[in-house]
Amino acid sequence: MLLEKVNYPSDLKKLSVKELEILADEVREYIIRNVSKTGGHLASSLGAVELTIALHYVFETPEDKLVWDVGHQTYAHKIITGRKDRFPTLRQYGGLSGFPKREESPYDTFNVGHAGTSISAALGMALGRDLTNSSDHVVAIIGDGSLSCGIAYEGLDNAGYIDTDLVVVVNDNNMSISPSLGSLSAYLSKKMSGPIYNRLRDEVEKVIESLPLPKEPTLKIARKLEESFKFFSPGLLFEELGFKYFGPLNGHKLEDLIKIFENVKKLRGPILIHVVTKKGKGYKPAEDNPSLFHGIGKFDVESGEPIKSKTVKKNCSSVFGDKVVEIMRKRDDVVAITAAMLLGTGLQKAKNEFPDRVYDVGIAEQHAVTMAGGLSIKGIKPIVAIYSTFLQRAYDQIIHDIALQNLPVIFAIDRAGIVGDDGETHQGVFDISYLRAVPNMTIIAPKDSYELEKVLEFAVDYNDGPVAVRYPRGTCATIDERYRIEKIEIGKWQTLKKAENDDVAILAVGNCNEVALKVEEELAKSNVGVTIVNALFVKPMDYELLRNLSKYKVVVTIEENVKLGGFGEAVASFFMEEGIGVKFRSFALPDIFIEHGSQEILRDKYGLSARKISEYILHLTS
Amino acid sequence: MLLEKVNYPSDLKKLSVKELEILADEVREYIIRNVSKTGGHLASSLGAVELTIALHYVFETPEDKLVWDVGHQTYAHKIITGRKDRFPTLRQYGGLSGFPKREESPYDTFNVGHAGTSISAALGMALGRDLTNSSDHVVAIIGDGSLSCGIAYEGLDNAGYIDTDLVVVVNDNNMSISPSLGSLSAYLSKKMSGPIYNRLRDEVEKVIESLPLPKEPTLKIARKLEESFKFFSPGLLFEELGFKYFGPLNGHKLEDLIKIFENVKKLRGPILIHVVTKKGKGYKPAEDNPSLFHGIGKFDVESGEPIKSKTVKKNCSSVFGDKVVEIMRKRDDVVAITAAMLLGTGLQKAKNEFPDRVYDVGIAEQHAVTMAGGLSIKGIKPIVAIYSTFLQRAYDQIIHDIALQNLPVIFAIDRAGIVGDDGETHQGVFDISYLRAVPNMTIIAPKDSYELEKVLEFAVDYNDGPVAVRYPRGTCATIDERYRIEKIEIGKWQTLKKAENDDVAILAVGNCNEVALKVEEELAKSNVGVTIVNALFVKPMDYELLRNLSKYKVVVTIEENVKLGGFGEAVASFFMEEGIGVKFRSFALPDIFIEHGSQEILRDKYGLSARKISEYILHLTS
Repeated sequence: MLLEKVNYPSDLKKLSVKELEILADEVREYIIRNVSKTGGHLASSLGAVELTIALHYVFETPEDKLVWDVGHQTYAHKIITGRKDRFPTLRQYGGLSGFPKREESPYDTFNVGHAGTSISAALGMALGRDLTNSSDHVVAIIGDGSLSCGIAYEGLDNAGYIDTDLVVVVNDNNMSISPSLGSLSAYLSKKMSGPIYNRLRDEVEKVIESLPLPKEPTLKIARKLEESFKFFSPGLLFEELGFKYFGPLNGHKLEDLIKIFENVKKLRGPILIHVVTKKGKGYKPAEDNPSLFHGIGKFDVESGEPIKSKTVKKNCSSVFGDKVVEIMRKRDDVVAITAAMLLGTGLQKAKNEFPDRVYDVGIAEQHAVTMAGGLSIKGIKPIVAIYSTFLQRAYDQIIHDIALQNLPVIFAIDRAGIVGDDGETHQGVFDISYLRAVPNMTIIAPKDSYELEKVLEFAVDYNDGPVAVRYPRGTCATIDERYRIEKIEIGKWQTLKKAENDDVAILAVGNCNEVALKVEEELAKSNVGVTIVNALFVKPMDYELLRNLSKYKVVVTIEENVKLGGFGEAVASFFMEEGIGVKFRSFALPDIFIEHGSQEILRDKYGLSARKISEYILHLTS
Repeated sequence: MLLEKVNYPSDLKKLSVKELEILADEVREYIIRNVSKTGGHLASSLGAVELTIALHYVFETPEDKLVWDVGHQTYAHKIITGRKDRFPTLRQYGGLSGFPKREESPYDTFNVGHAGTSISAALGMALGRDLTNSSDHVVAIIGDGSLSCGIAYEGLDNAGYIDTDLVVVVNDNNMSISPSLGSLSAYLSKKMSGPIYNRLRDEVEKVIESLPLPKEPTLKIARKLEESFKFFSPGLLFEELGFKYFGPLNGHKLEDLIKIFENVKKLRGPILIHVVTKKGKGYKPAEDNPSLFHGIGKFDVESGEPIKSKTVKKNCSSVFGDKVVEIMRKRDDVVAITAAMLLGTGLQKAKNEFPDRVYDVGIAEQHAVTMAGGLSIKGIKPIVAIYSTFLQRAYDQIIHDIALQNLPVIFAIDRAGIVGDDGETHQGVFDISYLRAVPNMTIIAPKDSYELEKVLEFAVDYNDGPVAVRYPRGTCATIDERYRIEKIEIGKWQTLKKAENDDVAILAVGNCNEVALKVEEELAKSNVGVTIVNALFVKPMDYELLRNLSKYKVVVTIEENVKLGGFGEAVASFFMEEGIGVKFRSFALPDIFIEHGSQEILRDKYGLSARKISEYILHLTS
């Protein structure tokens, strides 16, 4: 095993190209074996093995800076930069992060998880290098899917303009999470695109016809020229933006990659290298179904079959997806929009049944939101399904293009709260804070799958402004039927359980109702009565109900959002201004970034488990 | 006067092209005359007069949809769509908005103020049209400056991919607010750009050399081809993205514009028309200095000289700009970044003195922030100067690229609070809410110009994470020297004034300290003692000081931010959890979008004037 001897990039440099090729196979095998046990972003990482080895072989990392876009393709990078032995801890609590993380290694140059940031970050590093008169190389590695991000384009546009030394490697696998969308990706996969080629050909013909010349040789020239133009693209577009273009190259041929990187090291200015790779490369099940293997749980290496957990419960995404199909069958004015998340959001079913009414715009959250505004103005009801963490990208569009005009657009905010294994870049713990500040915005957090369906029906019928519906990653709670809400009314909360005395009232947001029910059970053992209110509407709040809480000794709120700017603060502020002097505590996430680990571990660690909350309330009532 | 007879687009259709040309001159004159009295976005609007007339002449507005990007070029549009008589009320409280606004007219199709949204909104409308089987035309009109926005590119990329009927007019004046930056704008202004032209020429030469043909005719062909290629660009890039390209056209020739729009009406699919205009066209002072006349106050029409208000006080932007120059002279590791706002943020002076250390990245806030992250990692200290309202665009980058890594980047947030005449799209009233939720973020709001300088010194020396410094639009307060802060310490507030009794404590944020001092004076007349605390650090708060307020009868907070998620809620939440039972009131902006009007009018209307606050506190204490 060559891999046994390779721990750091310096070890690579002792190997021949032939040996590097063998190493690539070993790394691949090591990744497959481990990820089958931990789960993770398999397909992207398999596609980038040779690219990773070639980059570390040619460049002097960590002095030279490799800036990975998104970062889910960095397993090979982790393995050959001192983290091979810890690789089996990937995405486990306390273990390696699934993404580059500066705290973890000097080879990780920029923390990442969201798409499209690499060129901007790399340009900053390149300018920093120039300012400090150092001479390191800076290389951004970005997938074609990430090129649909506005920020990636802003970075390219500015890098071409600023004109310092910077290498951008486009890792083109014609996929983001699902197949890439948008014109630019389509463009990359063509040898020569239609319109330009046609214009060039017409131009040549026009010139030749206009010349009084012997026919034979001119025709020959024309034909030869046309042929040569076919190989002219796809660098044009990047060259127009000021980059020197090289490619397309086979991204699995180590020798070619090494040669081009060595050449490019000597060149100045902005350079773009276009590398074509296969997502899932080297593992047939992943090659055949790269979307499934983009982010996967445990699987059987032999068969490629995912290993399902024994208790298969429906997750919120599929509850949402099924409900959207049902709604779209009834109402042909409803459309759905997502940003490269058809599978993840559960919208694939709707896309299959209504291909013309479900838009996947690629990784372009800003555009997704503003386009929904345009649709809304034409009387269409758009459901914009984006994960909580990615919706941050469209904050200005939510304010300026939707809320300002009070347009009835629905935001289906999946992965709200603690997301678990993906860690700090993906936690959906800010949406209540950033949306609550937005005028005209209604925020609803259903407590379980039944309520999620009812809330979607409510939202589709609601025409007085934008509605955000937030729900957690993973299993959708199924709370006992007797706790079902009868009717959803704007700003009205539901008293789930009324205690006989006035000891404690819990205001619970969304999935925290399940926790509240457990807390109630727990406290009953100590004869503490607990009233539970399902604070279904985070905004507007149920002020009447809030006023009636003044008789309680203790009132607490529970939410999976940061405490600052969250629901608890809203309640506290109301109490203060109304002079309601109950003992109060807001259970929410602390003012730090929450690391990766299972949802269960993290909820307990940060005080949102029934156990922790019960303990604290007991302490308050005693 | 032709303009007398023209009130609506239908009136245009009765005129000949010659008459339309005369009308254009009259509209221009009407704009200049009025804006000289009201102030406004003069230069952009003057550049778009013919374009506006031609669009309304050819298309059937308001059924056909004109979607203006940014919207500051729409004065001619307002004048010929039923708002001529109200035009003198432009940007005045209760008068016409300076931007398109659906509430104002059916001809305004999408509310706007921020750049880059038009293509996405228009694509949404086009899809809505298709879904409802209607047949209106949708036309987005976007400046070349706005093409540096990520969202504009996301829109182009997706529109080319979706391939429905949509017209995009690029109004190319080689300016955003200042001259446009970025490769794409540079690209637009070239007949044929270097690299592509060179590659085509080389290709032709190579082919010709390779053919055993008579030399004379082949050379002739080669030369002729090269010449013809010169006129081939600049449509290439847009054609690559799936658009049919027409242009460049002279945007002041009505006849040509009308002809092309009439042709284009019959075509299908995504179409891009490239129109070249002159910013400030027809008014020499504006043509000569379009940056100055981008957004201008009152001016003398004859001389083109701005009419200065009698009491010339220094505004916060220039206090900031001067301080940055001073800091950059002392420390060569400090750089500044802005997004097309060199003049507005006060950074022009620094740019003049340190051209290599001040980056104007164009209208690309996301990139600006992430690039700052890259610079920071290389040990550089970046100051990112962006208006509060535009920083919303970079919310995810602030969280994901800066705060997550706890990078010491400084955000200089100009125009925080009520901005006045620009109205709802430009109010900087959300930043406290959206930034407070972000872990690792420090938020400072200096109370006057002296403190702004001291805070900048503090921020530049602070290396423990990102620091946001927010300050208002316009005149920077100068508070009496005896109230100067001695030392700035993280999380420490300053007691400005200590009352002899414990009636009232005011916690004031930033410029609200000036208001608090007036309130104190006012309440002294009623023998109500007021302690004033300058809550310089919005985050982290001074918890020790907060605890000591428990003895007061009344505690109030004052801030120019929305109440929801604001500073007041943070204080209330702390009081509730600590069981501090004072009478409490948070003075902040209500949960609505704040319209345009002078800062003075709006502050009083929304309860942030000394008069209103004094009245309310008296009521609380009585």
